[in-house]
Amino acid sequence: MAVGAAAARTIMKKNYVRPLDLACGAVDLSHGGGGRAMLQLISEVFGRAFDNEWLRRGDDGAVLPAPAAGERLVIATDAHVVSPLFFPGGDIGCLAVHGTINDVAMMGARPLYLAASFILEEGFPLAELARIVASMAAAAKEAGVPVVTGDTKVVEKGKGDGIFITTTGVGALPAGRELSGANARPGDAVIVSGTLGDHGMAIMARREGLAFESGIRSDTAALHGLVESALAAVPGLRVLRDPTRGGLAATLNEIARQSGVGIVLDEMALPVNPQVAAACEFLGLDPLHIANEGKLIAICAADEADALVAALRAHPLGARAARVGEVCADERCFVQMKTALGGRRMVDWLASEQLPRIC
Amino acid sequence: MAVGAAAARTIMKKNYVRPLDLACGAVDLSHGGGGRAMLQLISEVFGRAFDNEWLRRGDDGAVLPAPAAGERLVIATDAHVVSPLFFPGGDIGCLAVHGTINDVAMMGARPLYLAASFILEEGFPLAELARIVASMAAAAKEAGVPVVTGDTKVVEKGKGDGIFITTTGVGALPAGRELSGANARPGDAVIVSGTLGDHGMAIMARREGLAFESGIRSDTAALHGLVESALAAVPGLRVLRDPTRGGLAATLNEIARQSGVGIVLDEMALPVNPQVAAACEFLGLDPLHIANEGKLIAICAADEADALVAALRAHPLGARAARVGEVCADERCFVQMKTALGGRRMVDWLASEQLPRIC
Repeated sequence: MAVGAAAARTIMKKNYVRPLDLACGAVDLSHGGGGRAMLQLISEVFGRAFDNEWLRRGDDGAVLPAPAAGERLVIATDAHVVSPLFFPGGDIGCLAVHGTINDVAMMGARPLYLAASFILEEGFPLAELARIVASMAAAAKEAGVPVVTGDTKVVEKGKGDGIFITTTGVGALPAGRELSGANARPGDAVIVSGTLGDHGMAIMARREGLAFESGIRSDTAALHGLVESALAAVPGLRVLRDPTRGGLAATLNEIARQSGVGIVLDEMALPVNPQVAAACEFLGLDPLHIANEGKLIAICAADEADALVAALRAHPLGARAARVGEVCADERCFVQMKTALGGRRMVDWLASEQLPRIC
Repeated sequence: MAVGAAAARTIMKKNYVRPLDLACGAVDLSHGGGGRAMLQLISEVFGRAFDNEWLRRGDDGAVLPAPAAGERLVIATDAHVVSPLFFPGGDIGCLAVHGTINDVAMMGARPLYLAASFILEEGFPLAELARIVASMAAAAKEAGVPVVTGDTKVVEKGKGDGIFITTTGVGALPAGRELSGANARPGDAVIVSGTLGDHGMAIMARREGLAFESGIRSDTAALHGLVESALAAVPGLRVLRDPTRGGLAATLNEIARQSGVGIVLDEMALPVNPQVAAACEFLGLDPLHIANEGKLIAICAADEADALVAALRAHPLGARAARVGEVCADERCFVQMKTALGGRRMVDWLASEQLPRIC
């Protein structure tokens, strides 16, 4: 016995789902339940913003062209828990796209695809979700790296903090490229692609209510184009790394440890925006420890440094690139800095947390 | 002026970090800060458990062999927010490995690599973290799918719920395999690989304090081996899907919608453990709507159904496989069930949330 027409009408009526109220609505637990409400959220918010052939299929994963013959696969993943969600220069959405693209790019790979997983807190305004997803979609489109698959979970009010986004990036690494934090050698030059501390100080200024006075903006940006420029100029580049959490200091200490070398920075050469320097002084922070989201550190042979700096400066995201130090033999793996006054001081990682939830 | 020996000793002393107190310690914000404490957590907890050549490199991403020529790439991602974290038959750790391996396997692909991203709440006991990570590592090892890269963030107490884990899986899809929820055709057979509702009811029983009496255990398991057996027997398999959130009902409704067909289930044929049936009755739940984490739905041509059921039953994870229904032409895309009493009822998705945080 098939379902009769009357029963079908009842069912259709019962199943009628109002459009999401993107102006005043909020996430509720049903949006993570695997049922009709989740489907609606996925289709009206995520599907519409990220629209592409893979998401449109509605399967549990995406089937994609593999890297070309001879290329290797690169995978990187990052959870994003930045607070506040919106800050001068960006938001958690574009940050989640840029951060993971950059991790893939730092391996020397061409980013190809992104997967995005959302953990939403019950009560989170749909308007903010839509704004964040639109920002992700715009960042992914600008970078040319589509979000091909995703997942959404909802946790009860008080068990999350609005929205957390984990992005995973998959890229293709051409043959012959061998970048690693373990490749720095004594004598190499250390180069940064621009000013230090902008992202972290944009977040801090917003938290401390200094946003409108300071004019400091996050530098969040996708760096794969800059990386291609750098590798075109200096194919033998040894190390690329983006100095995010823990800033330049943590990243250089990591590289020094991985490579078994020391690094000496030149304080006079470090590019820092005057507003960032002033805000750091005001808040008692050191720009060397502040997160960046649109900068890279490159290490190359000393005789290729000028070519690399020139290539970086020729790209809009590397206009303020500078050679800031050199690699030296040091089995203690110390990172040090020649100060403006002619002395030397240690540049250590921070033992504890200076700026929680910066990315 | 280099750092003198005395200064170096001071620094080394200052930098001395005690081993993590895995018995009584807790996660604090410094474990997500990008500094020395984070490095220690990563090395002593994650690095030790997941140990492999890619993690050992300590880079921001992993460089991996690409799929073989002619194979396509499959990517799937899943956030895991299950509560409670430990339940009869598993925990959030092995669930995060199985869940994502299964999403990759349901596309017909061989799972190759996992990326894992952790969002930890300040105050979360390190002992529980280590137990969860050990469970993940054991599940990954058993499945033969290594965790090749990861990320850790920490949020303030009250802004998370212990631990959330997002896993992303990358797999290789051999040429010729074309599985999709959109491929079901009228006349096809619908097969499930075993009993329904075990995972969801194990979680519910634990939440309701029925755990010890019920004996119900989660079915959480990696299904890629079972999928290979199924595809070896029936290469023309049309649809594979794991009925997780929303259970068999939601998954079949999704498939019906994707394929533009109807589905008719036979209630008498549906395998359900007696304890699960009893607990469902007790709690007023329907096993059709309860999540599974170690079962699959397969749809194939009717004349291949017997071969498929036999192949599934020959595998330890498919011992109770059964043919449970058929695909029919129905432009309304209804999923219906022939009841034990000879009637027919609609099998709808749930409009709202029945079991939050089941995975």
